[in-house]
Formats: sequence, structure tokens, C-alpha cells
Amino acid sequence: MSSSEPTKEVPTDPAIAPGGGEDAAPSKKGAKKAEAKAKKEAEKARKAAEREAAAAAQSSSAAEDLAKENYGPSPPSTKISAPYIHLRDIAEEHVDKVVQLQAWIQNSRAQGAKMMFVELREEGNWAVQGVVAASADGKGVSKQMVKWVGGVSLESFVLVEATVKKPLEPVKSCKLGITFAVASRAVGRLDEEEVEAVEGVEDLAITEGAPTASLATHLNNPAMHGRAPVSHAIDEVRIAVEDLFCEYLKAQGFKRFHPPSLIGAASEGGANVFKLPYFEKEAYLAQSPQFYKQYQIAAGKKRVFCVGPVFRAENSNTPRHMTEFIGLDMEMEIQEHYHEVMHMLEGVLLHIFRGLAKDYRNEIELIRSVYPSEEFLLPESGKEVRLTFAEGQALLRAEGPPEFANVTDDEDMSTPQEKALGALVRKKYNTDFYVLDKFPVDARPFYALPDPENAKVTNAYDFMMRGQEILSGGQRVHLPHELEATIRSKGLDPNQPGIKEYVDVFRSVGVPPHGGGGIGLDRVVAWYLNLPTVHLVADYPRTPKRLFP
Amino acid sequence: MSSSEPTKEVPTDPAIAPGGGEDAAPSKKGAKKAEAKAKKEAEKARKAAEREAAAAAQSSSAAEDLAKENYGPSPPSTKISAPYIHLRDIAEEHVDKVVQLQAWIQNSRAQGAKMMFVELREEGNWAVQGVVAASADGKGVSKQMVKWVGGVSLESFVLVEATVKKPLEPVKSCKLGITFAVASRAVGRLDEEEVEAVEGVEDLAITEGAPTASLATHLNNPAMHGRAPVSHAIDEVRIAVEDLFCEYLKAQGFKRFHPPSLIGAASEGGANVFKLPYFEKEAYLAQSPQFYKQYQIAAGKKRVFCVGPVFRAENSNTPRHMTEFIGLDMEMEIQEHYHEVMHMLEGVLLHIFRGLAKDYRNEIELIRSVYPSEEFLLPESGKEVRLTFAEGQALLRAEGPPEFANVTDDEDMSTPQEKALGALVRKKYNTDFYVLDKFPVDARPFYALPDPENAKVTNAYDFMMRGQEILSGGQRVHLPHELEATIRSKGLDPNQPGIKEYVDVFRSVGVPPHGGGGIGLDRVVAWYLNLPTVHLVADYPRTPKRLFP
Repeated sequence: MSSSEPTKEVPTDPAIAPGGGEDAAPSKKGAKKAEAKAKKEAEKARKAAEREAAAAAQSSSAAEDLAKENYGPSPPSTKISAPYIHLRDIAEEHVDKVVQLQAWIQNSRAQGAKMMFVELREEGNWAVQGVVAASADGKGVSKQMVKWVGGVSLESFVLVEATVKKPLEPVKSCKLGITFAVASRAVGRLDEEEVEAVEGVEDLAITEGAPTASLATHLNNPAMHGRAPVSHAIDEVRIAVEDLFCEYLKAQGFKRFHPPSLIGAASEGGANVFKLPYFEKEAYLAQSPQFYKQYQIAAGKKRVFCVGPVFRAENSNTPRHMTEFIGLDMEMEIQEHYHEVMHMLEGVLLHIFRGLAKDYRNEIELIRSVYPSEEFLLPESGKEVRLTFAEGQALLRAEGPPEFANVTDDEDMSTPQEKALGALVRKKYNTDFYVLDKFPVDARPFYALPDPENAKVTNAYDFMMRGQEILSGGQRVHLPHELEATIRSKGLDPNQPGIKEYVDVFRSVGVPPHGGGGIGLDRVVAWYLNLPTVHLVADYPRTPKRLFP
Repeated sequence: MSSSEPTKEVPTDPAIAPGGGEDAAPSKKGAKKAEAKAKKEAEKARKAAEREAAAAAQSSSAAEDLAKENYGPSPPSTKISAPYIHLRDIAEEHVDKVVQLQAWIQNSRAQGAKMMFVELREEGNWAVQGVVAASADGKGVSKQMVKWVGGVSLESFVLVEATVKKPLEPVKSCKLGITFAVASRAVGRLDEEEVEAVEGVEDLAITEGAPTASLATHLNNPAMHGRAPVSHAIDEVRIAVEDLFCEYLKAQGFKRFHPPSLIGAASEGGANVFKLPYFEKEAYLAQSPQFYKQYQIAAGKKRVFCVGPVFRAENSNTPRHMTEFIGLDMEMEIQEHYHEVMHMLEGVLLHIFRGLAKDYRNEIELIRSVYPSEEFLLPESGKEVRLTFAEGQALLRAEGPPEFANVTDDEDMSTPQEKALGALVRKKYNTDFYVLDKFPVDARPFYALPDPENAKVTNAYDFMMRGQEILSGGQRVHLPHELEATIRSKGLDPNQPGIKEYVDVFRSVGVPPHGGGGIGLDRVVAWYLNLPTVHLVADYPRTPKRLFP
């Protein structure tokens, strides 16, 4: 049933959609916060007044409401038969047509007693501004209906029958500035009385620039946090990184497999591993799919990859750490040299970076408007930057800050060293992405193959983004007697539980030379976008202090 | 360096490659087992004799070995420069060309002192038969080299320089019957002395029909188990099911997300959940991504899916159960009716089944040669079979076995009931895939929406394959007061930890009507192929008794 009688000239609400360019420029954080607070209070007052008015209207003039079938809580008293359309699909062709929308109320503001401006949003990123205006005869849209709409809680999900109109001037605050919906009916799917105040949610300014609430408040309220366009854009980038990773490797003949999360023994020495009762025994949560990737190679797969959670029981409360995160892992046979693997990993990361730069420009710009970042610099094709660990340390000694004047080639790098080296590499080679090869033996686990020509270093590498590690990998020991030796050199016993089962695979069957690497999904996204923390990337970040929601 | 001098007429080893068709037909299990045992013993004797001969040859005639640079353990003394080629890529164009192969020795057999038949295999499914024959002058290939090759342990990984030849007759036991490689050099990447006997591995007949070793022996030896062509084919089908699932949903606008495995409270009542110490608190392993899928909808995503491990601390030692398995899950907004979701799930499963039937014929045939199965019957397009739970029970009462003559519409179905109904549906509707809709309230969790027209049943369904459940789903309660009521009706408290956080999301923001479903990846594969157990599908199955490898 379509009963809309839109006003011919559709006004634009300047408060919702500022026409000027000045106001749109990002102001400083403090000002923003004060502004948000003022806005929040005004909004509270507005809502209270409108609820009161709506209640009064309902009790005193319900009998005169000629549009009472056209609004109200779910389920609707009459059905909307107009075709359903996504906000993002509204186009020139829909102008003056009646459509059905299903969206969230992002904002609303009364203009006198007969008109209400309403901003509707769908999927976090597509918004449209609409007008609910009472008709002269009170049919279609009544004054009572206008009031009811104004009283519906923000972020309620509503069904709307609307006529699409062209606005008189561009609507800046809405993604769909060229279109304009005039609501003739609105059905809340949630009775507003059922919506309770939950601590903190009101602080979430989901459509402002920088978030005004704390990170904890955001993470405690996944529904509101996720609705913010910036969260939505980060999600899109994260999805793209995973898809690009899988797409590239599949095209190179890699096969997906699923390593287990529950394992029978702490495989890498027992530190930082979660332990749990498992029927009459004990189980552990896998810290990496390392052994299982190698079993796949031993089982005759030439190239494998896996994407899934890994677990670290590390009491690290930093923006770089989570106790559970998604690992992107691969392993492959080596034909002649382990640099085949290194180049494959460079290939997949460059494929990811180029894919983002090409197809996710809008998302990156939106994210930058909240979390500023410089463009992520890539090496020219064929000019990838690969330093040995020793070369990196030499560069640090020669050109780095004075505190690194005496770094040695045998010890692992600290995070400050990594960052300083990242800055030097950016200046010298004009890239934010580079490889550090030939790590010292002491900085690597027992499965890293020592360089046959230099026993002090390994055929193992880290990949760096903006001076921070995002990938570790290398060639693995594939001969059982060498494996036993490297295990012993780390103070472990080749026959201890969890390691014996691993060594047995190499003892029992021929395993070809192989290597691989593991990438932290959230870190790639966070460092690419220069986000303040990986906790903004994971859907439900887990830290020593956070297990909810 | 290429020094091959192949014999002009290449013989075919009848023992490795039976020319007749009779022997290739599958014989009965008992006979197979006896045959395998005899073969194993013969193989042991053969290897012992050959090692002895090789050792004798090496000590007595090493000085005369004109080909000694051409074989030996890794690393090779000279490099093979011929181009590396995958077995699967060998084609007519390579005949009489010299190539480098890297593969496993699947079988070898001496023909006198000067000739050895060798079967090489790559990636579990591509095999080629070769001949190593000593030349008259002892250069290129010597008698000593032939003996050395015969002594290399089966399943060793070798580098081989070979000339591709056309065989005189088709080689039945090899996937690549039309080609024939003559080895001129062989370099074991593993020194055979380093390969120790590991309990059970010798029982693994990886290229025979039915496995001769127990399932436990197979699973205890992942490298050997995985090399069997049948394991390889099952892997390919499993990979395809996951890919087809993701491909279909992505095309329908679904977005991937990652629910957490570690959660702060046992969300569904506390039964069958793994618990672990988590710093100063306790954590649980997620039994499903249910709550998190719904949070995504509340956060403004219209359609989401996820693929990842879920955990059940159920002491069930059956072929249907694992304590950790991969769930394929989806959730979506409902526009008008929950059958939108049901049809989407039917769509994705039919896409999977049709994709397998179209592109995985070879794998399915190979798997059938080991695990026989009847063709999986699908409904005709537009004639999908959808019964209500009550209709299913009525059919069981009317036409099922006598023990089900009194089943009621209020109780959940048992596994034997499900199987009996599956047989009835197959007979009546000619399909192995159907939907059972409108499950009784008592058989569903609190988040299942009661049918607005019949409070005894829910808007929830199971999907069945060959009479076994592979999917559960339905419409969810999205209004907070209804959710509190259904939670209380199950004897739970809407404010208890783990449930309060969930209900709060619905209390705080409008959540649109929504529904979804969850599929067990391993079950879909196992029941489609009629495998005896899901443990043959998972890469590393986890059961109450199995945490290794």
C-alpha cells in the first residue's frame, strides 16, 4: 500500500548535513570530544521532549490520527508492498518511485511539529537523509506519526516506505548525497520501550571522526562498535587481505588444510602455552601450525596453506599482542634453494599490498580520516629490498641512533631496534616493506635449518612492515639426525612427548627439503593502515584481560 | 650433465604393472589382506637380499664403478641440470627428452642384476613407471648403481634424471600409463641408513585398494596415511566443499569474519564445554560461533559467514563425533520470512553437491574403489524435498519400522529414527538430501524463534544427507523480552555470565530479524562419499582418545 504525499520541494536539514566545507574539516580531539558531549546532551533533551510530546499526542489525539495504520512497533499492522531496495543501490532511476527500505536510524531531528529529518544507514557505510512531513489532511503522514518517528531510539532498525527525491543541495554527511528519501511509513522492528540504556553505549560516536569513547567501551559494545563506518572499512580491508592471500597461493598450486587447535603436548618447550584438562589427560592449544604444515609436506603435498586461530598464553598487554589471533601460514617443497620460498612469500605480500592499493582506495581514505597514516611505500617490481640480519645490524651501527652503535650479529633484534632499522630502510630504499634474511641461530627455533655455509646463522627470515615484524619463516631441517642435533642444541630432548612424534615422521619416511612462513593477519592490516592497535582489526580481540564479548 | 644411454626397447614389469584386466577388479577384503601380507613379506625378503648384494658390490667392486658420481645419498656430488618437471605434466612432447623428476619411490623390483623397475609417485596421485638399466660399458648407469637404487627404502624422496619413453604396452598401475621414464641418475635426498622402522608403518598399504592396516595405525602415521591416493582424493573433495561453500556465499554478498575460540563463559548451559585456566580467570572453548554470528548482524552486517574450529567436550567415541571440527557457518538478515535463509542454505549445499559431481568425478571414483558407495541422489531443481518435523514423524509412524509406530511430534528424533526416515524419503522422493523444518521447541536451544502461529514448534530446521543430520539452523529470537522468556523456559537465567552479555546486545540496540545455520564440514564430506567415519576426512582428527599426532 502506497499512500505517500511528499511535499514538492524537499528541504535539507543544515544541522544534519552541513553545506559548508569548513565544518567538515577535522578539528582537534579535545574540541571533538566536547562537541560530542554537547551533542549527546542535546540529543538526550531532545529525545525526552519528543517522547513526552509523542505520549501526549497519543493519549489526547489518538482518535484523530488518520495515519495510525502507517507506523508503530513491530509487527506492522499492514504490510509494505513497495519493492525492497538496498541504500547502496538507490540511483537516478528511482527518483519519484516508492521503495521499501530496511535500515538503522542514524540520526533524527524535528523541524517544528510537522516535519522530521531522519538519517538512515545500512551496512555501516551507506547512509541517506529523509524527511517525514505531515500532510495537510493528516492522511498518509500525520502529526502524530512525525512525533512517533522522532521518538524512536537512534540505532533502531526500521522498515520504511519512502519516495525517492533529488535533494535541493548536496547532502554532505550522507554517502548518498544525490538522493533523498521521503518517508511515508515507518515501522520500528523494535519497540523502543524494550531498548534499555547500557553503560557506555551512548559515548560511542559511531559516525564521527575519531572515536570519542575509549577503546574498551568500543570493544565492550560490539554491535555499536561494528556499525561505525570506520570499523566496517577496517573489516573490508581485513577480509581482502585474507582473500588475496588465499587467491595468490591457490593460483600457485597451494592446497588448504586445517591443523588442529587441540594438541597432545606443548611442542616448543612449554612456555606461553594454554593447558586444559582433556578427559583423563591434558591438552594444549597450538601456538602455531608449524609441525602440521611439515607433516603435510611429509605426506606428499607439495605446497600447503592454512588460515586459522593460534594461541599464545603470553601476559603481554601491548597493542601488538593478542592471546588468540588468525595466522596465515604456508609451507612448500624446495626444489633448489630456500629463496624460492622467500620469493613466494614476497610475491603473496606484494599481491596483497597492490590489491589493497588498487581496489580499497575508498576504505583506506575513510580509515585515514579517523586514523591518519602516510602512504605505505612499496619497492619497485624487481627491486625488492632484502638485507641479511648482519647487514641490518651494520646499518643500525653505522647510521642508527647512538644507543644501537654496538649491536651484534648474534643476538635477536629488539622492537626499538626493528623500528629504527625500518626508518633507516625507508629513508635509504624508499620502502615500508622489506626482508631481513639469515637470522642468527640463537634467535630461531630448533626447526630452522642452519646455513650450510655459516653455522652461526640460519636459512630463516623475517618480513617487516613500517619497521615491525609481520612474518617469520625459513627453511626447515628435514634430515632426522640434523633435527635431533638442533633439538639438543636448544636444551630439548628429541624423545620428549610432543617432539618425539614430530621427529618420528622424519625418521620413518623421506621428507623433501621444504620451508615456509607464518603471517599474523591482524598485524598486516594494522601496520598497513598504521592503526594504533591490532585490537581494532580482530573481530573479537582476546587479551590477558579480555574474554568478552 | 646428461649422460643417459637408454635401452631402445623399454620393457614393462608385469609384476608392478599387470597387463590383464582381471587382476585389477577389486577382490574381497580377506583375500586382499592375505595378498598384502604375502606381498609385504616378499618385499622384506627382497629388500634384505638387495641390500646385501649392494653392500657386497660396493665393497668388492667400488673401484670399477664408472657411474659412481651418478647416485648416492643427499647432497648430490654433481648437480642435475635437466629441467624439473611435475609427473602430472609429462606429455607426448617430452618423449625422448631428458628431464629432472623429484618424487617418492612407490615400488621397486629387480629384473636380474642389471635392471630395476621403479615406480615413482608425486602428490599422492600421479605415478610413473621407470627402468634403471646398466649400460654395456658401465658408464652412465652401472651395475652398482642399479643395486643401490634397489636398496633405497620405499617412500624415500629422490631426485632423478630420466629420459621419457613411450611404453611398449599400457602400464595399468600407473596414473601416467602412456609415459615411461628411464632413470639415468638417482639421488636419494635421505640417506637410507637414517630411516628407522617405526611401528605400524610397514602395514600401511598406501596404494592398495582397501587399507590393510587399522584406522588407528593410519592416523598414527600421518605422513604415510596422507600419501595414499585415497587420502589425497578425500582431501581434494574436502577442499572443494569448503571452497564451494565460500564461493557461493561470497557471490551472495556474505562477508567472512572470525569468531573467537576462547570465550569468557560457557554460553549454552555449560555441558560438554572445555574449560581452561586463563591468567587469573577461566576461559572456555567455543562450542559454536552462534552468539558471534548474531553480534555481526547486530553490528550492521547483512550477511556473514565463518569457517573455523569448534569444540565439544563430549565423551562420544563414534564415527560421527570429534572433539574439534571445522564448522561452516552463516547468518543473514531476514526480509520477510525465515525460509529465505533455508533456501539460501539449500542453495549453497546444492551448489556444493553439483560442483562435486561435475568436477570431482575422478576423485569420487578413486574413493569408491576403496570405500564403495551408491551415487548421492539429488532432488530435481525446483523439487527440493522439505518436510515438517511432524510430517517426518507421521511418515515414520505410517511407513517406518514397527518400533517407530508411536513416535510423537514433541520429542527430538533419535539417530535410528533419522536413518529410517532417510530411507523412506529416498524411496518416496528419490533424494538423499532433504530438509526437516519446524522442529519442536523442546528439541531446540533458547535462541530458536518459536513459530508465531504454533508455540509448540520453532522456525528451525535440520538438513539431512543419507538420513544423517549435517546442518542445524533457523530463525533466531531478535526481541530482548522474547529472548529473556525463551532463556527462562530452558531453566537458564538471562543475567547469568555468558548469557547476560548476549542479551545486552539485543537490549541496547535494534537488531533486525535474522537466521542462519551451521554445517559440519567433515560430515558433509563423509556422508556424501559414504565413508565409514568422519575421522577419514579431518586432517588431524581429535577424539576423546586421540590428541596425536
